[in-house]
Amino acid sequence: MSYTPSTESLIKALQILPGIGVRSAQRLALHLLERAPDDAKSLNHALSDALSKVKKCPSCRTLTESPLCEICTDEARDSTVLCVVISDADKEGLELSGHFNGRYFVLHGVLSPIDGIGPEQLGIWQLVDKLTAADNSVTEVLLALDDQMESDATAYFINEQLKKLKIECARVRFSQFKSGTLDKADSRIIADAFANKQSLGFEHD
Amino acid sequence: MSYTPSTESLIKALQILPGIGVRSAQRLALHLLERAPDDAKSLNHALSDALSKVKKCPSCRTLTESPLCEICTDEARDSTVLCVVISDADKEGLELSGHFNGRYFVLHGVLSPIDGIGPEQLGIWQLVDKLTAADNSVTEVLLALDDQMESDATAYFINEQLKKLKIECARVRFSQFKSGTLDKADSRIIADAFANKQSLGFEHD
Ligand SMILES: [Zn+2]
Ligand SMILES: [Zn+2]
Repeated sequence: MSYTPSTESLIKALQILPGIGVRSAQRLALHLLERAPDDAKSLNHALSDALSKVKKCPSCRTLTESPLCEICTDEARDSTVLCVVISDADKEGLELSGHFNGRYFVLHGVLSPIDGIGPEQLGIWQLVDKLTAADNSVTEVLLALDDQMESDATAYFINEQLKKLKIECARVRFSQFKSGTLDKADSRIIADAFANKQSLGFEHD
Repeated sequence: MSYTPSTESLIKALQILPGIGVRSAQRLALHLLERAPDDAKSLNHALSDALSKVKKCPSCRTLTESPLCEICTDEARDSTVLCVVISDADKEGLELSGHFNGRYFVLHGVLSPIDGIGPEQLGIWQLVDKLTAADNSVTEVLLALDDQMESDATAYFINEQLKKLKIECARVRFSQFKSGTLDKADSRIIADAFANKQSLGFEHD
């Protein structure tokens, strides 16, 4: 005896979620099938809908349902400053504060060779291409990454690429806030972090 | 600014999962869409597949992909003893131990009026119908529920119904094990619990 084949497949599939091990996946699968099949259908529909509609903006990689995201199409945004963030959640946190009026570039992760996440997966070559394109208007790049070791390595790697392009590069630090928790930082902390950005651009030269 | 409409719908839908609040749902949704769209497609397929194939056995409510579940169709099982459990996970735990050879009835929950879970949702009227049917062969019902307050109330309620039917009813207690963790109980603990079942059947008369 064990769970049915489709239940086992669902348990396996649920383990792709971060923080969900075998036991949690069993619990979630049984909950969906035993107690909440209608909710499970809604979830299935919502996931399928999001997967077909939500894409990465071709210019900044933020998640969008439009050909180009809202911020990239907003003419009122400062097109000379680009803020690099780890995830859309961090971008949301900064937007909530209202202290940044430039545009963004979303990595969707940090360098993690052991997980097969290199510059390609984070769009770093796309970022370099964007900054070297004929129509580039960006003159300053802000790296608003957290202080985790892998984030530091990622910031270092990006800065190494940008030094070659002679584009001003600075680190914006939110020391107490890990990626994904920036919306807990109050507006003043975010204003201070932008005001105290640390230039990296040419100091390694 | 905020997440896209489909992303927001997905975040809302994910909150149906037990233990997943707004922030976890955001994190899961972004993980699926940002970093793991292929895994998300697999999850979507597995969920859709399970929802269409997995049903509750009409006789015992265990999850099955057959018209009647494996245990209900197994002629070698003792058809005179019925073990009532809170979930398929508990049934799995008991099956692993090999100490019970009767059949099961799965509640998929416990009474919780505040959540709209009454006897109907737990199949308790179905259980009564089953035990009063002309072809009923069950002479003893074992309530293998955990010791949570709501489980005790559920056992009490079921026993009240069964007293009217003059069917022997006993409580099988796994005091250290909450529903869903019975597979951690070793075989000896389960054997002891069955050996030390507490008769409830007529003591309230
Ligand atoms: Zn964009
Ligand atoms: Zn059955």
